[in-house]
Amino acid sequence: MTARAESIIREVMASAAYRTAHATLAAEHDRTVDDIVALTQIAAPSFQEATRARAFLSMAAAHGLRDLTIDAEGNVTGVRPGVGNGPLICVAAHLDTVFPAGTELTVRREGTRLFAPGIGDDTRSLAVLLAWLRAMDAARVRTRADLLFVADVGEEGPGDLRGMRYLFQKGPYKDRISAFITVDSPDISHIATGGVGSKRYRVTFNGPGGHSYGAFGLVNPMFAMADAIARLGRVSVPASPKTTYSASVTGGGTSINSIPNSVWTDFDLRSEAPAELARLEASFLDLIAKSVVAENAARSTRSGPVTTDIAKTGDRPAGRTDESHELVRLAHAAISAHGFQPSFETSSTDANIPMSLGIPAIKVGSGGTGGRAHSLEEWIDVAPEPSIRGMAAGLATVLAVAGLV
Amino acid sequence: MTARAESIIREVMASAAYRTAHATLAAEHDRTVDDIVALTQIAAPSFQEATRARAFLSMAAAHGLRDLTIDAEGNVTGVRPGVGNGPLICVAAHLDTVFPAGTELTVRREGTRLFAPGIGDDTRSLAVLLAWLRAMDAARVRTRADLLFVADVGEEGPGDLRGMRYLFQKGPYKDRISAFITVDSPDISHIATGGVGSKRYRVTFNGPGGHSYGAFGLVNPMFAMADAIARLGRVSVPASPKTTYSASVTGGGTSINSIPNSVWTDFDLRSEAPAELARLEASFLDLIAKSVVAENAARSTRSGPVTTDIAKTGDRPAGRTDESHELVRLAHAAISAHGFQPSFETSSTDANIPMSLGIPAIKVGSGGTGGRAHSLEEWIDVAPEPSIRGMAAGLATVLAVAGLV
Repeated sequence: MTARAESIIREVMASAAYRTAHATLAAEHDRTVDDIVALTQIAAPSFQEATRARAFLSMAAAHGLRDLTIDAEGNVTGVRPGVGNGPLICVAAHLDTVFPAGTELTVRREGTRLFAPGIGDDTRSLAVLLAWLRAMDAARVRTRADLLFVADVGEEGPGDLRGMRYLFQKGPYKDRISAFITVDSPDISHIATGGVGSKRYRVTFNGPGGHSYGAFGLVNPMFAMADAIARLGRVSVPASPKTTYSASVTGGGTSINSIPNSVWTDFDLRSEAPAELARLEASFLDLIAKSVVAENAARSTRSGPVTTDIAKTGDRPAGRTDESHELVRLAHAAISAHGFQPSFETSSTDANIPMSLGIPAIKVGSGGTGGRAHSLEEWIDVAPEPSIRGMAAGLATVLAVAGLV
Repeated sequence: MTARAESIIREVMASAAYRTAHATLAAEHDRTVDDIVALTQIAAPSFQEATRARAFLSMAAAHGLRDLTIDAEGNVTGVRPGVGNGPLICVAAHLDTVFPAGTELTVRREGTRLFAPGIGDDTRSLAVLLAWLRAMDAARVRTRADLLFVADVGEEGPGDLRGMRYLFQKGPYKDRISAFITVDSPDISHIATGGVGSKRYRVTFNGPGGHSYGAFGLVNPMFAMADAIARLGRVSVPASPKTTYSASVTGGGTSINSIPNSVWTDFDLRSEAPAELARLEASFLDLIAKSVVAENAARSTRSGPVTTDIAKTGDRPAGRTDESHELVRLAHAAISAHGFQPSFETSSTDANIPMSLGIPAIKVGSGGTGGRAHSLEEWIDVAPEPSIRGMAAGLATVLAVAGLV
């Protein structure tokens, strides 16, 4: 099977269409960099992607995409039709960044390095989607599959993959996408074939409160919370499939001489495997319940018991695309054929949603290098040779998966 | 000696001055309630008492107090002069509450019940000081002693009795006060003759931090802290001498997908008995050390171990006024003569400071009833008969101690 994938990639790379497309990527590299800069400087915090979405829509409008539009969730979608009666393959990059409104976004350039919040994660990939469209247009590429291009909302933290949930579960393309490639961050050598699932909770422990001395003996929600966290710290999770937990942020209470009315902690639970994540989540909810019961038994509830508000603040499904799947093999072969050493990883991206639905999905890189994602010092390097080679590897993957005619 | 105190109180209560004063307390009860409401609705967290202090100062200004001012620490002080060459007796109530800035303070009324944070502890007492001044003025009360009225700062938690420390150790009245009565919370039947000692700590647990998924397995200071709090919750303390502990306020962490670098909790340890307090403090420090060792053994310290910063944030001296002291006997006789069943208690109030300095000191109640102090559901009952009777009992105590002329 690997040999077959390598053979398909060799055929793609030998084609006149690929060679013209590659030459176009190279010739238009400066324009691609300009697109990166222009899009980076349009703020797009999760839930505030609309301005950047409209800009992307107008930049994509030159490429003859069918049904180019902004869907009800805020995703930009448009179809590059194939020869007809083929499957629908989705290629996506996300519009949103982790940076709040008001963050300074002016791109600073030092040689081939560009610095700005969000420039690599994931704005560069948006420009690469446009570069691929231009290269395919220039090479008059025809594919068996229809290619659905998506610039999506809500990939980062609080967005909780809302763009993808809409695309796969509610929007006009739901039930029609047969394979999914998300382009996320520059690194081309790591192919994500596993989507880490996560469940996030804010658990608030409430109680009657009271004077720390006068009301001593009443239940204290801090003891229940501490017991819950301590119990979580003793939960065993497998190293593989990797499964993790964290008690991350905490707060509450009013004064040192008061038994608190209310304290809270934010918890993060993750796993590569849905079954392990479900098991961890069940253990977590069970140990919270046990801690509350224990506190209400340990001290007096005469002024009221300890109770909890358990708010699920994030829910990303885990998923996996088998490494033997043709989608993975083609990406591996294409990236390898372009001189990179591909390896597989598990991460949390837009691909989690299709993976969780059993739809073959991977994450590939946008090419070039970068670093310090999610920090104000985020940077990418747009040195032409490795950048163009990376983009070409991704495009070869898309052409092979879509079936170059 | 008890008979002598009872005789003095009988004389006071038989006097025309007392009877006129009592009638004034009754006639002006609605005004007193209005004062309670007005003062309660002025926020006064410890260290932010200035607005309420200025309001109290202007309300007290009608009463001809000598040297009415706000001292360098923030206490409102003013002297009601006696006939001359008498001792200086201090009567105090505290301005501050445990509730942080921004707490909703609007008073809710249900029949004779008033609900609001801080209304009983200790705002009602501030209004009672004003009611006593009005009653004394109306009755043209003259006393052998000078009466120093104080509305003081820093009684609660982090204030660490700063108002009293200043008054007794630094301010213009230091070394001149021969007896001290603080009016704190409604309950008139309990006279505090013992000052509970307390030790307060902010313990900060530090660790290397890291990504909640990528760095899973590293030590997490939240687990050490939770273990320490849970261990504290299992510590046995004697019911007598009353000894208590609380984990009261907590915070820390940066984001849900980060193992925190730093988390902290404020702890309150108290006892009537210095030896029990020392034993509890030793257990507390030991269990913190054990929790840190346990966390550093449970997870990896390859990026650094969990460590602690242990800051002592409060240290209130214990103290006691002998129950045979005339101050105590007069309060007991006055409260008893007003139809209450007085008993003695140990608590932590402004009286701790004079007690620890060997100055006779007690805490009495402001009259009426109340509950849920230090909780958002704090309430008082201002039903006139018991409220006025309670205020009259306190005033009779003050008049007897100051020597009605």
